[in-house]
Formats: sequence, structure tokens, C-alpha cells
Amino acid sequence: MQMGALDFAGGAVVHISSGFGALICAILIGKRKGLGTEAMPPHNLPMAVLGTGLLWFGWFGFNAGSALGANEVAVSAFVATHIAACAGGFSWMIAEWIYQGKPTILGVASGIISGLATITPCAGFLDPLSALFVGILAGVLCYTAVIWKTRLGYDDSLDVVGIHGVGGITGILATGLFASIGAQGLFFGNAGQFGIQVVLAISTLAFVVVGTFIILKIVDMTIGLRVSSNDENVGLDFSQHNERAYS
Amino acid sequence: MQMGALDFAGGAVVHISSGFGALICAILIGKRKGLGTEAMPPHNLPMAVLGTGLLWFGWFGFNAGSALGANEVAVSAFVATHIAACAGGFSWMIAEWIYQGKPTILGVASGIISGLATITPCAGFLDPLSALFVGILAGVLCYTAVIWKTRLGYDDSLDVVGIHGVGGITGILATGLFASIGAQGLFFGNAGQFGIQVVLAISTLAFVVVGTFIILKIVDMTIGLRVSSNDENVGLDFSQHNERAYS
Amino acid sequence: MQMGALDFAGGAVVHISSGFGALICAILIGKRKGLGTEAMPPHNLPMAVLGTGLLWFGWFGFNAGSALGANEVAVSAFVATHIAACAGGFSWMIAEWIYQGKPTILGVASGIISGLATITPCAGFLDPLSALFVGILAGVLCYTAVIWKTRLGYDDSLDVVGIHGVGGITGILATGLFASIGAQGLFFGNAGQFGIQVVLAISTLAFVVVGTFIILKIVDMTIGLRVSSNDENVGLDFSQHNERAYS
Repeated sequence: MQMGALDFAGGAVVHISSGFGALICAILIGKRKGLGTEAMPPHNLPMAVLGTGLLWFGWFGFNAGSALGANEVAVSAFVATHIAACAGGFSWMIAEWIYQGKPTILGVASGIISGLATITPCAGFLDPLSALFVGILAGVLCYTAVIWKTRLGYDDSLDVVGIHGVGGITGILATGLFASIGAQGLFFGNAGQFGIQVVLAISTLAFVVVGTFIILKIVDMTIGLRVSSNDENVGLDFSQHNERAYS
Repeated sequence: MQMGALDFAGGAVVHISSGFGALICAILIGKRKGLGTEAMPPHNLPMAVLGTGLLWFGWFGFNAGSALGANEVAVSAFVATHIAACAGGFSWMIAEWIYQGKPTILGVASGIISGLATITPCAGFLDPLSALFVGILAGVLCYTAVIWKTRLGYDDSLDVVGIHGVGGITGILATGLFASIGAQGLFFGNAGQFGIQVVLAISTLAFVVVGTFIILKIVDMTIGLRVSSNDENVGLDFSQHNERAYS
Repeated sequence: MQMGALDFAGGAVVHISSGFGALICAILIGKRKGLGTEAMPPHNLPMAVLGTGLLWFGWFGFNAGSALGANEVAVSAFVATHIAACAGGFSWMIAEWIYQGKPTILGVASGIISGLATITPCAGFLDPLSALFVGILAGVLCYTAVIWKTRLGYDDSLDVVGIHGVGGITGILATGLFASIGAQGLFFGNAGQFGIQVVLAISTLAFVVVGTFIILKIVDMTIGLRVSSNDENVGLDFSQHNERAYS
């Protein structure tokens, strides 16, 4: 039986999978030494912002390319992608400004990626105004998830859970609400689609959590999951690869 | 009444506007503390050169995309953009070599951006040879403008006035001289077009200077234009955003 | 008489030429002061990896663009380029892991460029599986060439000889073995093509070695080949360009 779940460019297979796979990894591998007692800010913000820009550009190929043709759906997905990225960066910045007192460029960059991850499953199904709402929602929800990270206590240095995992679920559900091009969501008179999207999100989540757990246990029993304490003290660049980032 | 002013991809609305808007900002906000007594070279030249490369690439989308179609005008604008960027980098380097004794990579990068800003309004109207002349002109004129900055005394850390402002005016006027595709300039028998371009440049300049002045005065009276002296001493990254570029 | 040599996007004119031109330069200009006694690792690996990514992306334009049209050959060249880059990075990493004990990101980056340089002449003539073989071969052969550098004693700081020179020859010969689209190589029943490719590789090599030697001798007799010992001690950035990369 086909249910007709919607996932334009991989919100379930890419973002829910990577995000919650990362959560299981973070829990099973454990925290970095010194987390909570040493400050661990990004060591090079200009590179983080540059990487965000390159990702944003590449995402156009990923989302619009998922139309599998140089056609109207590709244009629509391209526009939705851009709007959601902008809106995500903006709403994360505002949320952070209100909640933490100052807007940061790392927050704007995180919000952009949140918008991009969240719009991925929706991209070809939404009009531009819906993409704007989805992007705003993405920035606020993913920011909230990242804030909660510290309370929940797992160590996620790149915020993969909060941004890709929460963004992926938000996008899969949002597709069931806002879809209006090539399919209809709840807000366009098709409540059943939202139910299908809920099933998609939950079943992906369950599959990923169980599957990642099994894989990590096998890795743990064979080659091991975590480097030795000494290797961690020396640093992974040097202990695993004989390299240092800067000389 | 329509005058038929030519501005292919935004020499007036983007470059004259940003360049001379920046000049009013620089004058009203004032100089950075320590300018003239402390050395303030770019802190990371490889990133400046990398940014130039990414801008150059993006400019192809901007200028060729302004043809609004995958057609012959887009190809022509693409080629003109590339040639002008190369020629601008080359002529700035030569001017700097003659005038200051040594060519610099920052000069080449500045010349490339000068060529790109200047060709923007011309891009779809010029044949490749004209684009070469415009690029050479751009590098020399913008270099001269940047040299003059110190004498005029305003503080323009990114040389927006000298590169985008002077480049924008040069490009708007050059369109009136060199246009030969889809429209004719002075050198192709249509002297009237040059007059129209002069009116376009002057009226844009007047609008931007007055408009920016009014906006800045309103900002000054409400939230204020310049950070406190203490915030400036601490540095804007930390005082405004709670961030440091490198940790 | 036309022989019908195959070189899709410039394996001979770009990679054999640059690689063996560089070898003659390295021999005639001589080694950097301190080579062998001072450690000279790349000073910024993140930038090296970033540059590799940008090159990889640009290479799609270079190789697929050499089809001179948005057609099936362009798609085929694009796919072959991507596969060879991946395979080159992978096989260099494995070779390095076996031979030196640890895989490095600099090795993966070098392997990617090896795959790209090697697939350049083949790109439009190979099916994806052949591109995979060529990429694997590229990583292993170029890695071996770079290892041999130290024994042969020339100073090639960017490994242009080992990667572009050896990659270029490998690609020109591989085209004569694996070509199956628009032309046939040895493995597809046309042994003569391999002979033609051998002639192409050898004649390009001879032309480049002799031509570069003559040009360098003329430069040496007129403006000189190498900076003064003092300029080298100060560093070329500062002595030649009055600039420092970081302030």
C-alpha cells in the first residue's frame, strides 16, 4: 500500500536521519573531555560564516535539482529555498536577541542552515509566502532545540540534532500543512496529508534511532567507538591523522 | 517622459547608490579611533582574495542573469563581465606598481572588484573589446580615487566609495560611450545617449546623497549612529555581538 | 596528417604542460633555502581543503563545458569527473594509510586533485565504471610520484609535477585504454588509439621540457630567475609585494 508521503529533497532521508543518528552517536560516544568546564567556542567564525555561504549556494543545486529537470517546479523549489534560508537566519537572530540580549553571526548562520534543512522536504510543494512562514518557524524551533541541548546534557558540538534533526521533523510536518503545488496539505483542505507526514516523521525517527544504535553497538564490539583517553588529550587531528590544522 | 537611460544590471541602483551612500555614512559617522596613528592593514589577505574570487563568480549570475533569459545577451554580458574583471585587476596592478613601486595582491583584488562594479551597468550593451577598455579604465580611475581618499580625509575601510561609487559612475558614463548591442553610445554615433547617462549619474548621486543624509539624521536622533567610545575600544564584535572572530 | 589524438578537456595542453614545465622550473630555480632542515608543512590546512572544494566545483565547468553544449556528452563528462575525483581521494588515502600509517586530509585533497587532473583528457570519452578505475589509478600513481619527489631531490612545494604532470600523462594514456564514448580505446578493441596517445604524451612532454628550458634561460639572461638571497630571507610576500598575509 502506498501512503503518498511527501519529501521533496530529503527531509526524512537526510535531515531526520542525520540529526537523530547524531543524537544516538552523541549519547553512546559521550561528551568531550572538559565540556562544561572549559569554554569551547568556534575557533574561527569567518570560516563558519564562509561555510554557511557555500552550503547555502550548494543547497540550491540540491533542492531545485530534486525537480529532476530545468522546469517550473525547480524554479519554485529554488525560490522557496532562498526565502526559507533568509527567514531562518532572521528569526533565529531575533529569538537570540530577545533571549540572550545580543544577536550573533553564529546565530544567523545557524538560523540559515535551520531554514535550509527545514525547507528541504517542502521545497517543491510550497508557494513563496508559505516558505517564509516555514523559515521563520525553523529558526525559532531550532534555536529553542539548541538552547535545550544544555539541559538535556548530550554533547553535540555542531548542533546537528537541534538544526538537522528538529529542522527535518519540522519540514516533514510543515509539508503536510503548507503543500499547495502538486499536492495539498492541511491548510489547503487535505487534512489526511498531515497525518501521513506524522507517520513519515515518526517511522523515520524510529528506524534511525534503532538502526544507528545497532550499528554503533557493532562498531563498539569490533573496532571500538571512542579514541583512547590519551589520543583525546593529544587531539584527534594529530593522534589520528598526524596533522595539525595550522602551522 | 521616458529618457531611455541604460543600466544593464544596476550600476546606478547598486553601485552609485552604495558608494555614495557609504561616503555620507563615512562623513557623518566619522573616522575610526586611531586611524592615521595606528596601522590598519587587512588582517587576513588570503580571506580577502578568496572573497574576491567568490564575488567574481557570483557576479556572473548577477550580470548575465540580468538578461532575464539563457540567451545571447546573457552570454555577451557574461563575457564582458569576465573581461572587465581581468582588465580591472591588471590595470590597478600596473598603476600601483608605477605609483607605489610594488604590485600587491590586495591591489589586484581591488582592481577586479572595480572592473566588476564598472561593467555592471554596461554588461549587456558592450562588445568584448569595449569591455576590455572599460575594465582598464575602471582599474586606473578607482585606484586614483582610493589614493585620493587619504587627502580628502574620510575613513572608508573597505574602499566602497572609491571602488563602487567611482566605478558605478564610470560604468554609467561608459555605457553612454561604448554601447553597441541593443543600444548605441557616443562612439557608435549616438551622442544623445551619453547626455542621458550623465543625467542618470548626476540625478542618482543627488538622490543618494540627500536620501542617505536624511535617513542617517533620523537614525541619529532615534537610536544613534555611533557606538559608545567604550564599545569602540572593546571592539564591535564583542561589544555588539558577544563574539570574537577567532578563539 | 591527422593522427586523431584524444584529449577531451586538456590533459596534454594543461596538465602535462604545467606539470613538466614546473619540473624544469623547480630544477633551474633550485630549492628553497632551508628545505630538508626546516619543517615546511602547509601553514593552513582548512584553507587547503577549502581550495580543493572550490577547484572540484570549478572543474565541473571546465570538463563538462568542454562538450561545448548542454548535451549528453557534457553530462557524461560531468559524471566521470565527479567519480574520478572521489576515487582519487579515496585511493590516495588508502595508499597513504598503508604506506605511512595514517590517512591525512592533505592526502585526500591531493588525491582528489589527482583524480581531477587525470580524468580531464578522458572526461567525455569514458563510462562511469572506467572513470572509477582511472580515478583509483590516479590516486595511487600520483601518490607514488609525490613519494619519489624526495628521492629525486627537486623542490616542488605544491606537488605540481607529481599531481598534474603524472596525472596528465596517466589521463592521456588512460584515454587510449578506456575510451568508449565517441571513440574507442585499447580495451574496446582499438589498440591503435593507445599508440596515438603514447605519441601525444611523449611529444607534449618533449615540447614542454625544451620550450620551458629555453624560456627560463631567456628570463634568466634578462630579468633573472631567482630573487636575491636577502629577499628570500625576508620572504617574497614582503620583499616583492610589500604585503603580509596576516596582520
